[in-house]
Amino acid sequence: MDSTGTLARLEAVIAERRAADPETSYVAKLSARGVPKIAQKLGEEAVEAVIAAMADDRDGLVGEAADLLFHLLMLLGAKGVPLAEVLAELDRREGISGIAEKASRSQ
Amino acid sequence: MDSTGTLARLEAVIAERRAADPETSYVAKLSARGVPKIAQKLGEEAVEAVIAAMADDRDGLVGEAADLLFHLLMLLGAKGVPLAEVLAELDRREGISGIAEKASRSQ
Amino acid sequence: MDSTGTLARLEAVIAERRAADPETSYVAKLSARGVPKIAQKLGEEAVEAVIAAMADDRDGLVGEAADLLFHLLMLLGAKGVPLAEVLAELDRREGISGIAEKASRSQ
Amino acid sequence: MDSTGTLARLEAVIAERRAADPETSYVAKLSARGVPKIAQKLGEEAVEAVIAAMADDRDGLVGEAADLLFHLLMLLGAKGVPLAEVLAELDRREGISGIAEKASRSQ
Repeated sequence: MDSTGTLARLEAVIAERRAADPETSYVAKLSARGVPKIAQKLGEEAVEAVIAAMADDRDGLVGEAADLLFHLLMLLGAKGVPLAEVLAELDRREGISGIAEKASRSQ
Repeated sequence: MDSTGTLARLEAVIAERRAADPETSYVAKLSARGVPKIAQKLGEEAVEAVIAAMADDRDGLVGEAADLLFHLLMLLGAKGVPLAEVLAELDRREGISGIAEKASRSQ
Repeated sequence: MDSTGTLARLEAVIAERRAADPETSYVAKLSARGVPKIAQKLGEEAVEAVIAAMADDRDGLVGEAADLLFHLLMLLGAKGVPLAEVLAELDRREGISGIAEKASRSQ
Repeated sequence: MDSTGTLARLEAVIAERRAADPETSYVAKLSARGVPKIAQKLGEEAVEAVIAAMADDRDGLVGEAADLLFHLLMLLGAKGVPLAEVLAELDRREGISGIAEKASRSQ
């Protein structure tokens, strides 16, 4: 499954829809309200994910985690931060790239 | 750039380290403290991402977004929810798969 | 100004309205949705207070702080925790009672 | 019980300690780190209150609610908003003052 392309595709969709008609596009509508409102939504979705996890609501957690990722991409987009930069930071921290490289070299 | 594989790799790393020594592994240590503590960390990182965005702290936002993704993966793992399920939900909602499929058929 | 009686009065009002008609009372309506929904509202109002403070929106902060206190009282009420118990904990921690007592004795 | 004076006293204590030595005073130390850090703490305490409520941890909820109130007072103080202004807003919204006034007049 190419599950991993989802976030990159979603990031592109969000970038494209930002300039769409706020009447028909949620992305355009929320973008027009600015960073404080997008940040608020991110915070709210995190709270909802926390509550779903604590309530042992598996379906709820799936939905809230999806909402959280969506609004994180919206916030990153609004601040001009590519998702790739965040993922590179995760790679750097976890040393995943390094481990993978070492593994390929040792073959 | 294969940025998209980062989260799947990180998910696997987290799953592996969960049973590691809490003395040497952050993942093992936090996992041992249970879902409430992992959920708390997720909430805290979301708050920090919100504040970094509001403070126009670009580097801070990159770091907090990375922390947020990391702890989201930890929470999903602790609750037995594969990241792929969350990404599938995003695909379903946004109809990205559908649009991509339609585009390929119309070529 | 007897500003200090506001929270105690509000706590009583909330306790009274909890059994009111959910059609006409916000307190009754939110109470009927249970602790997860009340907790969610508390979290959301905290996020909004954070954002108002960061945005230097003074009026917004006043309003969000009021919302936060209101929903904190709702959550405490739903969990059977009197506000007085929380205030007693604050007194205990800060040693305010002790300092006040000492000051009165030294007069 | 004069529980209601606690927050007003705490507000005064915080205002006084803000200029204290950051080495010995938590209030001075946190104040020196600025509004973003105080706002972060408020958000974190809200998340912890949410989790304590969801975990049915009564003692935890008392403690987190106390922490939340403390950091709300710190944030209001840092932004120059008197607690009385927030309480006045609550009075205004709930019409408590109005109801009390009407009741006294109808006697």
